[in-house]
Amino acid sequence: MNEDRLYEILKQVKDGLVGIDDAYQALKILPYEDLGFAKLDHHRAIRDNFPEVIYCEGKTREQIIAIFSRLALQNNNIIGTRAGIEIFEAIKPDFPEVCYNPSARLVYIQRSKIPVLGKVAVVTAGAGPADIPVAEEAALCSELMGGEVRRIYDVGVAGIHRLFDKIGQINQANVVIVVAGMEGALASVVGGLTRQPVIAVPTSVGYGASFNGLAALLAMLNSCASGVGVVNIDNGYGAAALAISILNAFNG
Amino acid sequence: MNEDRLYEILKQVKDGLVGIDDAYQALKILPYEDLGFAKLDHHRAIRDNFPEVIYCEGKTREQIIAIFSRLALQNNNIIGTRAGIEIFEAIKPDFPEVCYNPSARLVYIQRSKIPVLGKVAVVTAGAGPADIPVAEEAALCSELMGGEVRRIYDVGVAGIHRLFDKIGQINQANVVIVVAGMEGALASVVGGLTRQPVIAVPTSVGYGASFNGLAALLAMLNSCASGVGVVNIDNGYGAAALAISILNAFNG
Amino acid sequence: MNEDRLYEILKQVKDGLVGIDDAYQALKILPYEDLGFAKLDHHRAIRDNFPEVIYCEGKTREQIIAIFSRLALQNNNIIGTRAGIEIFEAIKPDFPEVCYNPSARLVYIQRSKIPVLGKVAVVTAGAGPADIPVAEEAALCSELMGGEVRRIYDVGVAGIHRLFDKIGQINQANVVIVVAGMEGALASVVGGLTRQPVIAVPTSVGYGASFNGLAALLAMLNSCASGVGVVNIDNGYGAAALAISILNAFNG
Amino acid sequence: MNEDRLYEILKQVKDGLVGIDDAYQALKILPYEDLGFAKLDHHRAIRDNFPEVIYCEGKTREQIIAIFSRLALQNNNIIGTRAGIEIFEAIKPDFPEVCYNPSARLVYIQRSKIPVLGKVAVVTAGAGPADIPVAEEAALCSELMGGEVRRIYDVGVAGIHRLFDKIGQINQANVVIVVAGMEGALASVVGGLTRQPVIAVPTSVGYGASFNGLAALLAMLNSCASGVGVVNIDNGYGAAALAISILNAFNG
Amino acid sequence: MNEDRLYEILKQVKDGLVGIDDAYQALKILPYEDLGFAKLDHHRAIRDNFPEVIYCEGKTREQIIAIFSRLALQNNNIIGTRAGIEIFEAIKPDFPEVCYNPSARLVYIQRSKIPVLGKVAVVTAGAGPADIPVAEEAALCSELMGGEVRRIYDVGVAGIHRLFDKIGQINQANVVIVVAGMEGALASVVGGLTRQPVIAVPTSVGYGASFNGLAALLAMLNSCASGVGVVNIDNGYGAAALAISILNAFNG
Amino acid sequence: MNEDRLYEILKQVKDGLVGIDDAYQALKILPYEDLGFAKLDHHRAIRDNFPEVIYCEGKTREQIIAIFSRLALQNNNIIGTRAGIEIFEAIKPDFPEVCYNPSARLVYIQRSKIPVLGKVAVVTAGAGPADIPVAEEAALCSELMGGEVRRIYDVGVAGIHRLFDKIGQINQANVVIVVAGMEGALASVVGGLTRQPVIAVPTSVGYGASFNGLAALLAMLNSCASGVGVVNIDNGYGAAALAISILNAFNG
Amino acid sequence: MNEDRLYEILKQVKDGLVGIDDAYQALKILPYEDLGFAKLDHHRAIRDNFPEVIYCEGKTREQIIAIFSRLALQNNNIIGTRAGIEIFEAIKPDFPEVCYNPSARLVYIQRSKIPVLGKVAVVTAGAGPADIPVAEEAALCSELMGGEVRRIYDVGVAGIHRLFDKIGQINQANVVIVVAGMEGALASVVGGLTRQPVIAVPTSVGYGASFNGLAALLAMLNSCASGVGVVNIDNGYGAAALAISILNAFNG
Amino acid sequence: MNEDRLYEILKQVKDGLVGIDDAYQALKILPYEDLGFAKLDHHRAIRDNFPEVIYCEGKTREQIIAIFSRLALQNNNIIGTRAGIEIFEAIKPDFPEVCYNPSARLVYIQRSKIPVLGKVAVVTAGAGPADIPVAEEAALCSELMGGEVRRIYDVGVAGIHRLFDKIGQINQANVVIVVAGMEGALASVVGGLTRQPVIAVPTSVGYGASFNGLAALLAMLNSCASGVGVVNIDNGYGAAALAISILNAFNG
Repeated sequence: MNEDRLYEILKQVKDGLVGIDDAYQALKILPYEDLGFAKLDHHRAIRDNFPEVIYCEGKTREQIIAIFSRLALQNNNIIGTRAGIEIFEAIKPDFPEVCYNPSARLVYIQRSKIPVLGKVAVVTAGAGPADIPVAEEAALCSELMGGEVRRIYDVGVAGIHRLFDKIGQINQANVVIVVAGMEGALASVVGGLTRQPVIAVPTSVGYGASFNGLAALLAMLNSCASGVGVVNIDNGYGAAALAISILNAFNG
Repeated sequence: MNEDRLYEILKQVKDGLVGIDDAYQALKILPYEDLGFAKLDHHRAIRDNFPEVIYCEGKTREQIIAIFSRLALQNNNIIGTRAGIEIFEAIKPDFPEVCYNPSARLVYIQRSKIPVLGKVAVVTAGAGPADIPVAEEAALCSELMGGEVRRIYDVGVAGIHRLFDKIGQINQANVVIVVAGMEGALASVVGGLTRQPVIAVPTSVGYGASFNGLAALLAMLNSCASGVGVVNIDNGYGAAALAISILNAFNG
Repeated sequence: MNEDRLYEILKQVKDGLVGIDDAYQALKILPYEDLGFAKLDHHRAIRDNFPEVIYCEGKTREQIIAIFSRLALQNNNIIGTRAGIEIFEAIKPDFPEVCYNPSARLVYIQRSKIPVLGKVAVVTAGAGPADIPVAEEAALCSELMGGEVRRIYDVGVAGIHRLFDKIGQINQANVVIVVAGMEGALASVVGGLTRQPVIAVPTSVGYGASFNGLAALLAMLNSCASGVGVVNIDNGYGAAALAISILNAFNG
Repeated sequence: MNEDRLYEILKQVKDGLVGIDDAYQALKILPYEDLGFAKLDHHRAIRDNFPEVIYCEGKTREQIIAIFSRLALQNNNIIGTRAGIEIFEAIKPDFPEVCYNPSARLVYIQRSKIPVLGKVAVVTAGAGPADIPVAEEAALCSELMGGEVRRIYDVGVAGIHRLFDKIGQINQANVVIVVAGMEGALASVVGGLTRQPVIAVPTSVGYGASFNGLAALLAMLNSCASGVGVVNIDNGYGAAALAISILNAFNG
Repeated sequence: MNEDRLYEILKQVKDGLVGIDDAYQALKILPYEDLGFAKLDHHRAIRDNFPEVIYCEGKTREQIIAIFSRLALQNNNIIGTRAGIEIFEAIKPDFPEVCYNPSARLVYIQRSKIPVLGKVAVVTAGAGPADIPVAEEAALCSELMGGEVRRIYDVGVAGIHRLFDKIGQINQANVVIVVAGMEGALASVVGGLTRQPVIAVPTSVGYGASFNGLAALLAMLNSCASGVGVVNIDNGYGAAALAISILNAFNG
Repeated sequence: MNEDRLYEILKQVKDGLVGIDDAYQALKILPYEDLGFAKLDHHRAIRDNFPEVIYCEGKTREQIIAIFSRLALQNNNIIGTRAGIEIFEAIKPDFPEVCYNPSARLVYIQRSKIPVLGKVAVVTAGAGPADIPVAEEAALCSELMGGEVRRIYDVGVAGIHRLFDKIGQINQANVVIVVAGMEGALASVVGGLTRQPVIAVPTSVGYGASFNGLAALLAMLNSCASGVGVVNIDNGYGAAALAISILNAFNG
Repeated sequence: MNEDRLYEILKQVKDGLVGIDDAYQALKILPYEDLGFAKLDHHRAIRDNFPEVIYCEGKTREQIIAIFSRLALQNNNIIGTRAGIEIFEAIKPDFPEVCYNPSARLVYIQRSKIPVLGKVAVVTAGAGPADIPVAEEAALCSELMGGEVRRIYDVGVAGIHRLFDKIGQINQANVVIVVAGMEGALASVVGGLTRQPVIAVPTSVGYGASFNGLAALLAMLNSCASGVGVVNIDNGYGAAALAISILNAFNG
Repeated sequence: MNEDRLYEILKQVKDGLVGIDDAYQALKILPYEDLGFAKLDHHRAIRDNFPEVIYCEGKTREQIIAIFSRLALQNNNIIGTRAGIEIFEAIKPDFPEVCYNPSARLVYIQRSKIPVLGKVAVVTAGAGPADIPVAEEAALCSELMGGEVRRIYDVGVAGIHRLFDKIGQINQANVVIVVAGMEGALASVVGGLTRQPVIAVPTSVGYGASFNGLAALLAMLNSCASGVGVVNIDNGYGAAALAISILNAFNG
């Protein structure tokens, strides 16, 4: 990684422009910056597909504002996931361009538009509080990272005709994210109906024996349909990140 | 239970036909018979829906033959579940009317035909060694206890068009048994497509995270479709017994 | 499904009454309506046994009222499960015929009486906060969907004589729902005493090693009595839906 | 422990009969003997209720014979649990008084009769290979340690009238051991019908969701009946040891 | 059960003092009373060892007061477990003799002194909020049911010399209750040091991998010491009930 | 699905070339064929990315040969996974072009070369029997379905310099499959070092607390790196199918 | 333990300076003190490595203050873990030298400086609320018990270059504590890069399938790197105590 | 890592002795060797504490011999863990100095004696097949890597006096390895009695609810004693590696 820089340093050593000790130190220092409680890595874009994402859950308001403000000085685009509205309100005075989506619980700044990398369908089984926030996190994060998103919600397998009406739309996407709780069967049904890669996101709401999403997680891992990859329970952002890495694989 | 007999005994006491001590003893003795290692209950038919079922797994050949022979003297119909062919071969010399089904691993005698109580559809997701033996156990036991069975196999959700072709047949049954392993999604899809009561049987075969049927079991318990009841993993007989009790509820 | 309609459309195509494109679209569109966050399916009654049930847990007050109001315009009978009293109070001004049952936590409208389909016995092991709300949800939902319900509460196996006094009543039902937490033994005991189909509902309250209903769930799945089907932990509505589908199987 | 001996040593020190160093050593040395791979504790009878029990599972034939032979020189009574017949055959030439019970898989020597300490009822739900070997291990070990045992087998709750006929016998015991697999409901039912202390032993055989006895174990721990203590899955010896310690509590 | 009464009824039938129908009804009616939401069983003392115990957790204040008041009219001794102080305060005006123990969270009335049945030692590993409330529930319930209790607290195995000083006291008890969380090792150590029956109560407090008492529960079930029976996590009352049933086994 | 065909049928109806009844039947019949125990779906290629894959585990030799032979008549390319060498030997006489890979346990026929869709890197943590067979299944299946595969084995994180030497190769792939057991950390480390989508395959071999791959599975689902999707334990084929669906998403 | 004292007592007995009874009592009394609800053991320093640590979680304010005050009279150094600021504020009036660290939630008195025993590196994967409090508990406890601590935070494997820059510092420590949640991969990576003993602390924060730290716990137990020992989830103090015992092993 | 070499290469670049491209390549190539199925890392000794350890379980005889032979050419000391005697017999002809320990299942070559780094006590609870092989693996591996080992076997807590006799020996070790199955209490008891670091190894043998070592694992993680680190179930080698890394921490 950063191979050009390595090559350049070696060249400078050869040319006597840089001493051995300095080169030695340079080779060991990688570009990040110390904020005390969190090391921010501005070069992460080289390895990853989006400048910086902050997982806000459990962090104090002060910590999030400090990290956010610091990043906002050097990055055009920033996403904070699992953010309450109070985070948004605290950041807004200094960064009026900040946006907030209460359903997805995302706070974000998008100064430069990411070029569209491809199409992402986000499909949910239900329309309730279990599936929609996770789906919205997946959908909005996908958009912020370069996905053209189509939302197809409430097409669970208990009324499977609702889903069939949408198969055409699903097949037009390059990647399909399926968000489902309870028994998670939607991932298998969609996986059986489309050739596209399916990213399955189990959600945690349900009656007792859903065990906070374990039932859906296991179901998705055991999908009889092929072409299904699973991310963590309720991890909408993780699904988006995988979707974008798939789109990138053919755009980078 | 056995209220007429209780009434009769009381009457005999009143009429002086039976002494107090005898009545007292009679009221405490219920009709079963001691075979040493297993108490056989010939009156079980009153409470249950089929004379006698022997769970053969783990029992020694000698034990099974002894129980089977004893029952065969006083019952017209007997089923042994989870029976290897060696059980069949050992019983056959004495009871030439005994039958064996190697797929369902059932050994049985059916001397008197049970009147047909209703229709049972047995639906499987797969066609492999995980689902078929369980489905056959469910189907054949249903038949032996009075069900008219239609087998609809290999209609899993990964190729859901196979299932849709069969929905008409499924809807003609009074009760539907769905046998599925892996993610068990078939129970939800069938449950969403039919008004009939669905009995879901998870099966134990699958890749690692099926955890021997746990994934399918949890999925079925969390079915988003209504009208689904679940029995134990691989328990084809249990599904049949529940199906027959449903048919009986309107024939008895 | 909807085969007459399919046949009719084909006929109209043949007769030149309908163009190919229109027929093509018609065949793909199934009757539901888009409410933004939830697709309501007015035709669900054809496949399922009751017009519409809303699972209120986790949904916002606003969401529930919107769904409820929308459904109430086109349906005679609606049930909202897991509903707090505030839902009831918010709906009542617009729909004065709405009812609320605080124990079952059900809010419902019943404009047209469902014809009685059969008898359901709801049996509980305990009389405390673990079993009664679940039992009431099962009982009241059963009534709202056409069951004639008899409640037989607090007949747990620790004082088994209480149960025996009620066996006659239990045997008069077409379907028996057994609600029990802790070790869930009541399902097995009832299952052993009756020929009727038994729907077992594990409940989640108990000391530590009940693991929120897991102990009762596993016990019921492993019932030594036959004719027992299990639904999810605390899922009183699910038990009712299965009971009604059983009653329907012989009335439809 | 061994307080008299401590007192005596101190007295001997005071009287000059024993030197400080010797006393110091004596106080640190407790009476056991080194056999290389297993320290045998001949004084264990003081703390425990039976001379010596060898858990044979997994030990090599050679190891078991060595331990057994060594113990047989200094103890009148020895039990080897989970012993195959080959252990018995190997020991018999040197100790012709050795006995073997193939069902309980116990090999034992009983040279001196233990006085009867009290009555133990051993009750099982089933009559098959799940329950009987465990029950026999419990019953025979109880007998070898001073229990007068009554075996009451195959009285599971699916045919609960079988159990009621035996309640009188059960109530005559001082301690009741209940052996049951599947859903383990028998422990609760017996616990609800008797005042005697109940020792519950879950067994490991069953359909898939018994998870090798976990279902019965959890059920027994959650028993709604009071006066029930649970031992490990299939641990017949453990139940016997607890039963004997209860009998001893009033005989010692 | 209630065999004298059965005999007497039969005699009355014979003597013509009671008609068949009345006898029939009498034989079917067992003595309990219907309070609407809970059937109270005044004769439970015959089968169990203490008149009536109310598990208050989750019940409403109104429910508990109603049950308590009703029982207090016909019973001398009543215990309410898991009771907050508000229960006590609500009952006190009507029953000034009611007592409350905030540590054990027990509310109780003891009008007649139970004769002492034997000695119970209650031993805890810790002195903190995990072990003491459970131990106090066990200790006080034991006292109210006839146990002479000695409390031996904070003698966990991390400082095992504390325990050894108390072994004498432990050995003087007829039954030993060991209350321990975390790794639950105390049950094994005490079990190895005493001949008395040991009732092990796992407690639920601990760091993450205690999994709310599962670690201690499994440890106690796997105790290498013999003579140990386990009750549910945090179930101090259950331990007391088992202890009293053991004392009763030799006093009744 | 199959929309052109639907359109065409409608057109033929309109043109009077096809009668209503025939059209009705045609619309309901989807192209699969009944082999008795398994419905073979020759049109699956339209929905999925490779003609036909047979999961051989648990199927009898006879079943596999029958399915394989039947498919081989109508398909150019067939894969049998989890196949022992005896399957290969049985098929070879009739289909001399069949190949077998003992490490991957794949038996396959490849009559027509699939055009290369993109590059797949298959990376393993270890070189032992846990990881290599799974990796080979993933690699060979990928090749048979159109992937150009680079194998990078034995680069686990315990000697992380081995991995860094290969990062360049990894980054040249379009999709990366990471196969790892034990703690599964390799998925996170690779995910952190590459922008490409990572498919993580947990493997089942390890010391006790790997719980047959559960430890690796959970680790991969909780990966702190983004762009990681997880498939079932040991499911090399599943990883390949997902990889190919990703490659297809930009080639189809 | 305390062998000199034992020897001395024996000598005094021999010399007639101490009577038998007194010696007997002395040998049985070990030095601790009874505070009612908690036995304080002032001599624990002989066996353990730090005077006294109070686990405050769940204890009442009054209990903690009582224990703390009592210990503070006889010990120079005291640590209270999991202490809220209200504990600190309650203790401060009487013991103005008390300190509080809100991140680590430690309240402590350090009157005498512990000599430095060696170097401890505390390494975390993240910088958020999951890892830092646990790391700070580990770091500060280590310092208070004689460790010279270097904190190396936020060097998780998703940006592994951050870690490599710190390997030199890590290698200079005598013991390394690694604190990580999610997939816990950092323990393996650090373990593979250093020869020093690694103490791994799983943390409990994460998405659903982290199951409150179980994923990280299992990962660490299955580490492919050698030289890794694991402590309980979130148990920073436990890691410190193990680190100090390692440092002590070469200083004591 | 390998910093001198890095420095030297930079110096050679500066001095013109090495070209930029060569340096660039050299910096990227780390010293390992490709054996086809396993990359052998001869420099691992720099980072780890012993030349090379082969985990033989599951590897084929051929694979093990190839790896072993290759390593034996360049290393003085090699250990193969979990090796059957057939591995030993296959290697012996070529390397007559190879040794085999059947109890520990270790095959090893020790050409150069490792200097003694410190003392290790290996303590077991039992003397049976659960604990001894694991303990022997730990003990012999410790010896081969520089530990002076004292074996203290069969001192489980059920007869705790056996343990106390050995506390002096335990305290003389620098590190203590405790091997225990069942409830794993020995780790806590030893941890409470010694100041030395304790490495706890849970073993997998036991009755049902040991769940293959899970009970002991959880118990050890929840140890109430401080200074305890846990390794994987049955992982004797892992315990030895951690012990040696501790000894090394003060010898390196």
